[in-house]
Order: sequence, then C-alpha cells, then structure tokens
Amino acid sequence: MLQLDFTNAMAARVGAHGLTEDEWTSALGAALPAYDAVEKDAAAGRLGFRRLPAQDTKSLAEYARHTASLFENLTVLGIGGSALGTTALASALLHPWWNFAAPEARRAPRLFVLDNVDPEEIAGHLEVVLPERTLYNVISKSGETAETTAQLLVFVDALKKRLGDRWREHVVVTTDPAKGFLRSLATREKLASFPVPPDVGGRFSALTPVSLLPLAACGVEPERLLAGAATAEEKGRETAFKAAALYTALYRKGKRICVMMPYARALRDVADWFRQLWAESLGKRRSLDGREVFEGQTPVKALGATDQHSQAQLYNEGPNDKMIAFLEVGRFRRPCPIPPGWEDDTSAFLGGRDMGDLLSAEKRGTERALTANGRPNLTFRLEGVTPETVGGMLHFFELMTAYAGRIWNVNAFDQPGVEAAKHATFALMGRKGYEKLAEEIRGETPAQEAVKLEGF
Amino acid sequence: MLQLDFTNAMAARVGAHGLTEDEWTSALGAALPAYDAVEKDAAAGRLGFRRLPAQDTKSLAEYARHTASLFENLTVLGIGGSALGTTALASALLHPWWNFAAPEARRAPRLFVLDNVDPEEIAGHLEVVLPERTLYNVISKSGETAETTAQLLVFVDALKKRLGDRWREHVVVTTDPAKGFLRSLATREKLASFPVPPDVGGRFSALTPVSLLPLAACGVEPERLLAGAATAEEKGRETAFKAAALYTALYRKGKRICVMMPYARALRDVADWFRQLWAESLGKRRSLDGREVFEGQTPVKALGATDQHSQAQLYNEGPNDKMIAFLEVGRFRRPCPIPPGWEDDTSAFLGGRDMGDLLSAEKRGTERALTANGRPNLTFRLEGVTPETVGGMLHFFELMTAYAGRIWNVNAFDQPGVEAAKHATFALMGRKGYEKLAEEIRGETPAQEAVKLEGF
Repeated sequence: MLQLDFTNAMAARVGAHGLTEDEWTSALGAALPAYDAVEKDAAAGRLGFRRLPAQDTKSLAEYARHTASLFENLTVLGIGGSALGTTALASALLHPWWNFAAPEARRAPRLFVLDNVDPEEIAGHLEVVLPERTLYNVISKSGETAETTAQLLVFVDALKKRLGDRWREHVVVTTDPAKGFLRSLATREKLASFPVPPDVGGRFSALTPVSLLPLAACGVEPERLLAGAATAEEKGRETAFKAAALYTALYRKGKRICVMMPYARALRDVADWFRQLWAESLGKRRSLDGREVFEGQTPVKALGATDQHSQAQLYNEGPNDKMIAFLEVGRFRRPCPIPPGWEDDTSAFLGGRDMGDLLSAEKRGTERALTANGRPNLTFRLEGVTPETVGGMLHFFELMTAYAGRIWNVNAFDQPGVEAAKHATFALMGRKGYEKLAEEIRGETPAQEAVKLEGF
Repeated sequence: MLQLDFTNAMAARVGAHGLTEDEWTSALGAALPAYDAVEKDAAAGRLGFRRLPAQDTKSLAEYARHTASLFENLTVLGIGGSALGTTALASALLHPWWNFAAPEARRAPRLFVLDNVDPEEIAGHLEVVLPERTLYNVISKSGETAETTAQLLVFVDALKKRLGDRWREHVVVTTDPAKGFLRSLATREKLASFPVPPDVGGRFSALTPVSLLPLAACGVEPERLLAGAATAEEKGRETAFKAAALYTALYRKGKRICVMMPYARALRDVADWFRQLWAESLGKRRSLDGREVFEGQTPVKALGATDQHSQAQLYNEGPNDKMIAFLEVGRFRRPCPIPPGWEDDTSAFLGGRDMGDLLSAEKRGTERALTANGRPNLTFRLEGVTPETVGGMLHFFELMTAYAGRIWNVNAFDQPGVEAAKHATFALMGRKGYEKLAEEIRGETPAQEAVKLEGF
C-alpha cells in the first residue's frame, strides 16, 4: 500500500546533514520504548483513533445515499479538523474538477468546504450557491466552535426565510454524541445528526463521520476508506514508527522544518491536513513531565512540480534546516498523452510522452538536486490512489504522529496553546462571562511612544 | 494605502525575542547604504520592475475588452511567476466565487490557472472546460518552460481536432518580445501575443501582461493596478525599506521562518505569491561577492482565522523561531450580518454582529496571544481592497524584496539553484543535448545495501 524510501536521508547519500548508520540505529533503539508505550495505550483502549477502522458506517452510508444525493450542493461548515480531512479526501478521490463537472457525470452534489468567517466569502457563497438546493453539514467536535456557530446562524436564517420550517431538512449535524451546543440544538430541533467519538481529537477525526459523511454523499464508500485504515492499523505500524523515529532524528539534527511535497494533484491537500496534525500534536511548550521544552517542527506544504518554480531555489541553496518528504503515487489513474510537438528542441522531446512521465521526471530531478546539495529527503510512495490507499495513508500518518509524540515526550493529543486567543476573541465579541477579560484587553493599548507605525 | 505596524516586534512588547530600540536603530543605519544602492540601480534603469507603473496598457486593455470577453473560459497555462500573481490578484479583485457566479453577473470569462503537469488534472480540465469555448493564455517569460510547453501541446492538439485552423483564435501568448520558443511560435503561427519586458524577472512580473491580461479579461482595469503601483513607487519606498530592515533584523535574531497570515480571504493568495518572491530572491548559497553564505528565510503561508485551528498551537508554544506578519484590510467590501442566535451562551453573543467583526476579533486575539508568548509579530494593513491598493501592495513587497537583497548582500534577481533539477528532468525525458547527463543519472542508482526501504 505505502512505501517509505529514506535512502536520501542517510549520510551515505547527503553527507553530514544525513544520518549515519550508527545514528539511525541508536535513534531507533532510543525510540522503541515509545512504541511500546503507545501500543500499551492502544491496547488499553486509550487511543480512540485506533478503533476507527472497526466503525459501523451502515446508517451513515444509507443517509448519504438517500438524503444527501437529493441536493445539488453539499456545503460543509467547519474549521480545522472539521474541514482539512474532507478537503484532503475530496482532492484525492473525487474528479479533479468535481464542482465543474456536468451533474450527469457527477451524480452527486457539488462539495464546498467553508472553513472561515470572511464576510465577503460567506455572503458571496450565499449568493452563488442557493440555500434551497443545498444541504449544510455543520461540523464541530465540541459543538461549541464560534466560527462554525456564526456560519450556522447565517445559513439557517437564509434557509428559514426561503423555506420556513422546512429549513431542518437542509441541515445535518456532526458533533459529540451527548455534549455541547450543536448536540442540544440537533436534539431540540430534531435535526439529522452523526456522532464524533468523544475520545477522538479533531485532527485525528478524518475517518469519523466528520469526513466520512461528506465523502459518502459524493459517492466514496466509507467502508473502503476504513478497510484501508484497517490495513494500516494491522500492517503499517512498524513503518509508521520508523517514520516517526526518522523525522525525530532529523529534527534533532537541526531540520526544524519538514516540507511535505506531493508530486500528484490528488495528494496535494494531504499535505495541508498533515500540517495541522504535525504542528498541533508536537508543537508544545511543556513535556509530559511538565518541563519547558518549546518543541515543534514546522510543517510546510509544497507542491511538485509547481513549487520547483517557487521554493526549490531556497530548498537547494538556503540554510540546510529542512527535510523534504515527497509524496508520490505508483501510477496515475488516467493518462494525459502529450501530442507530437513542433520541430524544435523545446517541444520535440515532450511529444509522444505522457504528462505523468514529465511529472515523475521532475520529481526525480528535484530529488537528485536536493541530494547533491546535501539536503536530506525521503519519499512516501502510495501504490495508487483509491479510497483504500488514501484511507490507509491518513491512518498511517496518525500512527506516525502518535509515536512521534511519545518519542518527543509531549502530549500529542491536546492543544493548550490556542485557548488564550479564543478567550480574547470571546471577550472582544462581548460574550457573557468574559467581561473581565474584555476590560483587561481594553487596558492593554500600548503607550503612544511604544507604537511603531509606518505607511503611505 | 498601506500601513506597517510593528509595535509587537519590539522588545518592549515581546521581550528578548523582539528588537530593542538600539537594535532597531542600528539595523536601520546598517541597512541605509543598501537603500542608496538600490535607488542608484533604479535611477540607472537597471531595475526593470521599477518602470512598470509607467507602462502603456492601451492595446492590452483593448484586446481584453474585444477578444477575451467573447469566451466562456480563460485558462492560463503557466507556472511559478506566470501563475502566482494572477491567482493573487484574482482572489483579491474578483468575486470570491467568481467561477460559480451566473454568467450574467460575471459578464466575463471564468478564470482557471493551470500551473502544473499532473495528468489527471490536465485531462480532467479538457473534459470539463470545453476547448471550443476557451481562450488559452500561454505564459512563459523565457518562452522555454517545459511544463508550459507540454500543456500547450495538449491544448493546441485538442483545439485543432475540434476547430482545425481556427485553433489560433483560441491562443494568446505572453512571453519575451524577441527570444525563445513561444515568441517564434507566436510569430510563425500569427498568434496574438503580448511582451514581458526582458529585464523583469518572473517573480517580479505580476504587473506586466503576465497578470494584467488575464485580469483585464475579467474586467479589472490594468490602469488602476498600475496607478496603485505608481503610488507605492512614489510614496512607499521608505516604508518598504523599513520593512526590509525589520525582516532582516528579526531574521538575524533567529527568526528563520516568516509566516504571512492574511485575515481576509481576498488577500489569501498574496501570501502564496510572496512565498515565491521572498524564497527565490533571498534563498542563496552565495553572496554578491561570491562567499558561501547559505542565506534564506523560509516564508510560510497561513490564513486567519482558519490556521488558528491548525498552526496557532505551534506558533504560540513551539520554538520561538518565527516572525508572524498579519495582512489585514481596513474594511471589508461587503457585510455579512450574523442574525440573532438561539438563547444560549454559545450562539447568543454572535447575533447582531457581523462576520467581519468576528474575523477582526480573531486577529486581535491571535496577535495578543502571540505577543504575550513573546513571539514577534507585525501587521500590514491595507486601507481597503481595490485594484489600486492591491497593485500597490504587490509593488510594495517587490520593493521590500529588492532592498532586502541588497541588505543581505545577495542577488535578489537570479535563481541558480533550480538549474540542476531542470537539466535532470530534460535528461530523463530524453531531450536532445542531454544524452550524457542521462547516462550519468542512470549510473547513479544507489548500491543495494545503501537503499533504505520500509513499507506495507
């Protein structure tokens, strides 16, 4: 299903910035107890995401088949973990121009993921994607997310104005099975709803109804995604653990940045999903035993071949502070033959080949240049792009992140660093209970002489 | 037009990771000769991008009005500097859901920017965006870009099959005025074409026909973009210089990563465009005097409020190795009122406010948390989003990059580090003249025992 090739992360290939055989052996050895600790947690049922492959998706699949398919549009209201997995899976598994395809070809709704509160974006969406033809899937694990609640208010109001009481048929809720505002709203208003397991964190929730529902509505069978995850769970743990040890060893050697660079449009948003997973799980001020560590490797999303014309100069010649992880597919799902060119050096050699050949050659060229410049790099190669392999890949990266958390001795499952901004936002918006903080913030205006302002 | 507020980049606000008044004064002083050097180059006519505000765009505007508007679609074929500026300007200045708006509302073509060679993406585009209703704007400064040439071959073949000799009416070329494959093709086949000034590099070319033409075709007047650039050229140099000195001083204090985080959907792709500008211009192995320096600050694109739910944890608690630059707009172009909520704490406080208030409060909350955590941050505030302000903003960042190049003592206008991969790609694709390199590459297969492979 998935291969990890890290030949070019070794000192034998990239010199001092790679790992020697000894360094690699000792990194693996040092990491082993973390593997055992994670497996112990999993066996004791403490890691919710590990149980996801065994989910029952029958009622979800049925709802998707019968209800969601009645709509011209499916608009997801969600942010962060409620949006990124869906975008990653949709980019991978739907037609690359899904929302532009003819309805007969698509035979499922257009899919929009609204993961922000920009007024121009939301008001524009309302104008262009008609509520009376749209199903809104409002998603928040806690059921308390301010951005998502604000979106919901806007769209429910629009639905009520057009459809009166029938607005309820246009909203499906995905949230905690028992707690939170969205759950009580769903119960009170008798809205269709699906549960997010309480012990699965937002960034580990792609393979819950959070993404399974919108994907199922677009024709991707949840069973197939979960079958792939089951394969990763069963057979991929060792590779995931080694990948975690490898990232750790390179991080400790000064690779403060990890680039993920898919050479396949299908996988482009996997890199964005991974960005949340890796940053939120490992970016931590305190270790598990409470020491200040300020750990964190900064994940960067890039895209081959596009970013060869944007970031490759820096990756090759800038500070050697990065590791580059390519994502590659074993085969593309369809060819795009390049017709014979004109009779000149620039175009002739391209004719008769396929776009896929060119993209693969670009990847090999980039890999070779980075290696020659002593920049450690590695490749995750997905056999092909199917619901099984992509489901497996997401579960694989989640395993890898869980192992890395233990190796780093940080809590991979919390996010204490986002609370302060959230509370300040509540205070600034006048939420009840935040009056004191609001006053505090008003008092914080920097003194006139401290303000640094330039402009024209 | 544009304000830079860097109050929160100073030690008075963020402690040891910010700049003291002395550090700032001496950074500015040390940078001053670079300002003079750049201005001397500009005065001597050596900086092509500085002359762009004075361009004559009459024939381009006329072509756009009369020709481009006849098509249902405009598809740009280009990569890197031929694509990023267009995407940034389109996101800022067209309707946020432009391609989904009703044709009567849009009164201009849908706009697609194809900046990759993925076979699934290109073949899918052909299927969904009909060539007989599409104008292809093929863009390459050199006229020799392999990816763009491959795309052109595919689309010209499709046009010929459908339209015979009339394919020519569906292609407009933007390239060097005299040299390169695309220019000779345009001349030989009598294709409509526009020039890219030879002394303006790809990443500085947004305000040339490269982006002016597609934007004009979608109804954005080139004159207005250039008027804004003229304002930046005339009045924004000092601010741009100070911004360059500020970025430099923070980089030297260990901020190896600069995040650009727009809190406005309109500006989201300005961050991606800036990513190329900053990375390719400053990521350099050698200084102007030939020493090995391996300079480069890694630009990262983020988006508020979305990335608060993905990257904020890392930015607040991870290593203090970043500076965060917010982009903000003084006012949004349209409101999106949040209707009264239900009677509960989660939704009630949102009702009666506007989405724009929420987004602004999120920005202030994030800024406050970062500042409290000692993370230097700053804000570029654009008065409003118009062709003038956005054109001015791009020119402003180009000025800033040119000054930074001189301060860093690197060549901000070349990109030697991308040649190796390009040549390897040619060799792997069998291009004439690269036979020896191809053989070399074939000989480079790592020894069996060096290969590191894991998988399942």
